[in-house]
Amino acid sequence: MTHKKVAVILSGCGVYDGAEIHESVITLLRLDQRGAKVQCFAPNIAQHHVINHLTGEEMPESRNVLVESARIARGEIKDIREANVDDFDALIVPGGFGAAKNLSDFAIKGAECTVQPDVLALAEAFAQACKPVGLMCISPAVAAKIYGPGVTCTIGNDAETAGAVSKMGATHKECEVTDIVEDKARKLVSTPAYMLARSISEAASGINKMVDRVLELTHEA
Amino acid sequence: MTHKKVAVILSGCGVYDGAEIHESVITLLRLDQRGAKVQCFAPNIAQHHVINHLTGEEMPESRNVLVESARIARGEIKDIREANVDDFDALIVPGGFGAAKNLSDFAIKGAECTVQPDVLALAEAFAQACKPVGLMCISPAVAAKIYGPGVTCTIGNDAETAGAVSKMGATHKECEVTDIVEDKARKLVSTPAYMLARSISEAASGINKMVDRVLELTHEA
Repeated sequence: MTHKKVAVILSGCGVYDGAEIHESVITLLRLDQRGAKVQCFAPNIAQHHVINHLTGEEMPESRNVLVESARIARGEIKDIREANVDDFDALIVPGGFGAAKNLSDFAIKGAECTVQPDVLALAEAFAQACKPVGLMCISPAVAAKIYGPGVTCTIGNDAETAGAVSKMGATHKECEVTDIVEDKARKLVSTPAYMLARSISEAASGINKMVDRVLELTHEA
Repeated sequence: MTHKKVAVILSGCGVYDGAEIHESVITLLRLDQRGAKVQCFAPNIAQHHVINHLTGEEMPESRNVLVESARIARGEIKDIREANVDDFDALIVPGGFGAAKNLSDFAIKGAECTVQPDVLALAEAFAQACKPVGLMCISPAVAAKIYGPGVTCTIGNDAETAGAVSKMGATHKECEVTDIVEDKARKLVSTPAYMLARSISEAASGINKMVDRVLELTHEA
């Protein structure tokens, strides 16, 4: 059995200003349980801001996305500029506001957003190589930026967010938290996770299905 | 079916200066999958220090244990002073250096350590009520402080740490990462987790077994 190699892009450490921690850990756990080898990456940039997760208020601090993401990865993480698509079979991006504040500015600019250049370059390389990509929660919001118009994905059923996603050129499909949406031509798999999940096990149900499908797709030509 | 209520004590957010994130999330996931209701708590105190998880070096910052723990709990966390043993059926404490730097000073003082007063008071209340407690990774190091001499627990097989645990009066039993040690008289269940785990799924194997056993013990008289 060959071990599939999967790149995971983190966006900080915490749902309100970084990568959603439960989504990230569930992804890492499922990949490991399925025998995949994982390398985490994050952009070496300042976070958009720092949120006190107890009060929801902004803190007068500055934190680095790569340094904080290293907490989730137990230090085993690299600057995304070191990532080479040739070294991997698939890419997965957990959600959390970090995906929409650090990896892109979707949370601020909506349909007018741009994706962080190093993140966009890596994601585009997977798309061009037709290697499977898994997106969850809010991270599918930028699918059209990676794949261009016509790509199919889900962020669950939030009308305003889905509207912005459609405005960018993607085809949004509503999806239950336990399920996945697959764009077969592009090998893009997405799931709502905490866009809809009311509990950690609900989030896990869709994420596990997404991870399993992404790994299955690495076996296809 | 009645939902068992479980208190989880977090000690920050990150293996080197707080709660081990994988252990914490795996605990929350298993408890939820088993139908338990969880409330996270943490002491409202400054962290011992802040470690850059990318470099391993100390950062010139101060962070609060409760505020950082809130990242793992998605904001759903309370000051440990608000915890009342009567409201819960069981207590679980994930590991990470936070357990040995913030919840106690075991990482600095070894066998001469003391436990943070609010943490000790809550843990002692569970012990006195004979309600089941689950400890993992380095958190069983302070078992003798909670239960007194003669308590049986595991931190895996690290000779130096086990020596300090024994010196404090506990009976240390070596244990595989996939297994648990149970002190039946005291309803204390412990597992090595990342004291021994070489992967996240290894850590999950023992943690899941520990969570399941703790929940089973809530059904005993």
